[in-house]
Amino acid sequence: MNGLCVDLYEIRMAVSYLRRGMRGPATFSLFVRELPPCRGFLVAAGLADCLDFLTRFTFDEDELDYVGRTFGLDRRDRQALAVLRFTGDVRAVPEGRVVFAGEPLLEVTAPIAQAQLVETAMLNFVTFQTAIASKAARCRLAAGEADLVDFAARRTHGFEAAAAAARASAIAGFGATSYVAAARAYGLRCAGTMAHSYVEAFSDERMAFSAFAEDFPDVAVFLVDTYDSLAGVDAAIDVALRLGAGARRGVRLDSGDLAALAAGTRRRLDAAGLGDARIMASGGLDEHRIAALLTAGAPIDAFGVGTKMGVSADAPSLDTAYKLVEYDGRPVLKLSAGKATLPGAKQAFRGAEGDVLTLRGERAAGTPLLVPVMRDGRLLGPLRTPEQLVRDARTRCAADLAALPEHSRRLVDPVPVPVTPSAALTELTDRLRARHPSGGARS
Amino acid sequence: MNGLCVDLYEIRMAVSYLRRGMRGPATFSLFVRELPPCRGFLVAAGLADCLDFLTRFTFDEDELDYVGRTFGLDRRDRQALAVLRFTGDVRAVPEGRVVFAGEPLLEVTAPIAQAQLVETAMLNFVTFQTAIASKAARCRLAAGEADLVDFAARRTHGFEAAAAAARASAIAGFGATSYVAAARAYGLRCAGTMAHSYVEAFSDERMAFSAFAEDFPDVAVFLVDTYDSLAGVDAAIDVALRLGAGARRGVRLDSGDLAALAAGTRRRLDAAGLGDARIMASGGLDEHRIAALLTAGAPIDAFGVGTKMGVSADAPSLDTAYKLVEYDGRPVLKLSAGKATLPGAKQAFRGAEGDVLTLRGERAAGTPLLVPVMRDGRLLGPLRTPEQLVRDARTRCAADLAALPEHSRRLVDPVPVPVTPSAALTELTDRLRARHPSGGARS
Repeated sequence: MNGLCVDLYEIRMAVSYLRRGMRGPATFSLFVRELPPCRGFLVAAGLADCLDFLTRFTFDEDELDYVGRTFGLDRRDRQALAVLRFTGDVRAVPEGRVVFAGEPLLEVTAPIAQAQLVETAMLNFVTFQTAIASKAARCRLAAGEADLVDFAARRTHGFEAAAAAARASAIAGFGATSYVAAARAYGLRCAGTMAHSYVEAFSDERMAFSAFAEDFPDVAVFLVDTYDSLAGVDAAIDVALRLGAGARRGVRLDSGDLAALAAGTRRRLDAAGLGDARIMASGGLDEHRIAALLTAGAPIDAFGVGTKMGVSADAPSLDTAYKLVEYDGRPVLKLSAGKATLPGAKQAFRGAEGDVLTLRGERAAGTPLLVPVMRDGRLLGPLRTPEQLVRDARTRCAADLAALPEHSRRLVDPVPVPVTPSAALTELTDRLRARHPSGGARS
Repeated sequence: MNGLCVDLYEIRMAVSYLRRGMRGPATFSLFVRELPPCRGFLVAAGLADCLDFLTRFTFDEDELDYVGRTFGLDRRDRQALAVLRFTGDVRAVPEGRVVFAGEPLLEVTAPIAQAQLVETAMLNFVTFQTAIASKAARCRLAAGEADLVDFAARRTHGFEAAAAAARASAIAGFGATSYVAAARAYGLRCAGTMAHSYVEAFSDERMAFSAFAEDFPDVAVFLVDTYDSLAGVDAAIDVALRLGAGARRGVRLDSGDLAALAAGTRRRLDAAGLGDARIMASGGLDEHRIAALLTAGAPIDAFGVGTKMGVSADAPSLDTAYKLVEYDGRPVLKLSAGKATLPGAKQAFRGAEGDVLTLRGERAAGTPLLVPVMRDGRLLGPLRTPEQLVRDARTRCAADLAALPEHSRRLVDPVPVPVTPSAALTELTDRLRARHPSGGARS
């Protein structure tokens, strides 16, 4: 049913392996070659979708008809694809954990055709969701005690991306999302107030605020910048003062000099006795603008963060690779200029002095990052709801962010934690490289 | 069924309008406020998904249960949402046309609750797909006569985004995609060869090439850079020479100094009598690298362009807005600092001296960009297949790109075509602004 969620070359290679009886186990390692210059760490995300994809991986009849016809596969090839399921093992870094360049986020071990066919899916889910979770984590670090709300749905790359961004930002510590479908799917808090159009649809701003307060007295948060922000605040105060004591009152600032406007708004609200009314800010925000506003002392209680988080505007992708590291018991590597890989299935350990990258069987100081999550195509551990998965990942993320050294967590010119290959990994790499003198092809 | 593909505030506002009997027609205009600095033009895309969304827009029972429970809607609200369908009109710039800042890409006119509820969807589809089509068009302009293949699926923002990117790049003039599901959905040519893992899974490179050529003699394109690119070319030549005359032969270069390697590869292929063998290049390419390679005289026949196109890496989003411009016969505007809007339903005309932005009823020199595409919730014109929609958009795009002035189409420091508001639009804007002296809120 998701058999066409592949790049064509995966089908060609899988068919070739199957025809040739190449059914030995292959291990592919998924890692980020280099962090974007503006990132001191990444937050792992996307694993839940990977596992879901693997458990459902099949070619249905329509799909087989299409690939058979279009790519000239014979009846035997189609039959081999028809019965193909993912029966392999997966080890992965749990969602929400902090990772660095070179560390496997996920390793797939399966008969080579299976492991090859899921390349695009594994790369896609992990690359995209890790990019977004990492950007959202930087917003979380910038925002201190303030609340963060995901406003990204309108400019993410489709609605599937909007749901994934809501989930990734929840893992990173956002408190709510405006995107209703994602709130429902992942059990997130949903938040939202009114748009400028609502204010404009009434003959004046105060009438709009009154109408809204009447309809939704529990969420009386008024968007005040349609015409003039501080005049809008005055109108909001008039309306808010007529509401019952239990109402959640507030205003949203969406344009202009947000620091100055927030200060002016706070003074007006306090003078009116609305000390409990909250100020929300939005409009093109990212971690840098959030930090600048808070550094300037802007009394902002919540930030609505949209597009720049939802597309990870300064790093909308990551330099990920899904590389064969072992086939049929034989460690392999590629030597391509600038893209050489390290052979062998791996583990990474987080120690006090930084991370160590080892071969799978090795031990090193610290705690291992990869854990078994699937065996023989079956999920390990108790079944978790989508809601539980997010909650667990969020807990891990908060702990890992708290443990990050200051130079890695800072927003500008961050320095990632070093990842050092173990002696055994270095020795194996050197030995295999020696078989390809000066990268010569004919081994 | 797609009723939750909204930001929460749209539900709140819609419910408020419905409760109050505010059923007058509203016109919302979707436009890009400013082009990213690295763009001289945009290519409109996303309309097909918008229209599909509008024809299917409904809240099903599960969705109503969720919103009712979660947002405290009463039975009457839920009943009003249950029967809500999109019954409005849409005018839009056809997909594939070139557009500039300030020009409506789409205008929705419908009872205000309906027009409000589809805000997130209209913004999302148009913003994302226009961003990708525009980036892909720059690659198309850079590549001259060379073929372009979409390789983006592995690092787009989800698979839905991968399909949309394949489609958007086809509109912009790409010749094929590696993403199988998109090729099937939109009738695109699908292309792909082998990965480094395939080469590594065999005990040497030549054996891998032989096996692949045996299995797929019609697409004998060999990836040569796993160990050493030019040695890989020699191995590819040995294998290619043993193939029948009808085979499509070629090599793919994926790393290193692509210009020098392509020249060395061409010399080797020609010396071996393989003058018809094609050279494909890939690996982190974008329009700038393509242009640099071709300027350097690199004999590359086809470029595989992936991530940087598929996420529009230098402009992963656009500064779009979906703004109320008219309600119940009354033109409206907002005055928010830096985000003021122009009132009234509009049209744009493309003339010899640039584009003119007018009020809807006006005439100006040149051809109008917006055309009616939906009336009373029904699609206008003959039903088109997904394949036909792409083909038509591709034709429009090629024509509009050919007509672009050089300073707008150039890759570096492009200058967009100016869009001038008509006298009547300027007069209306000034008149409405005058009602809000110094942006004062209390009109």
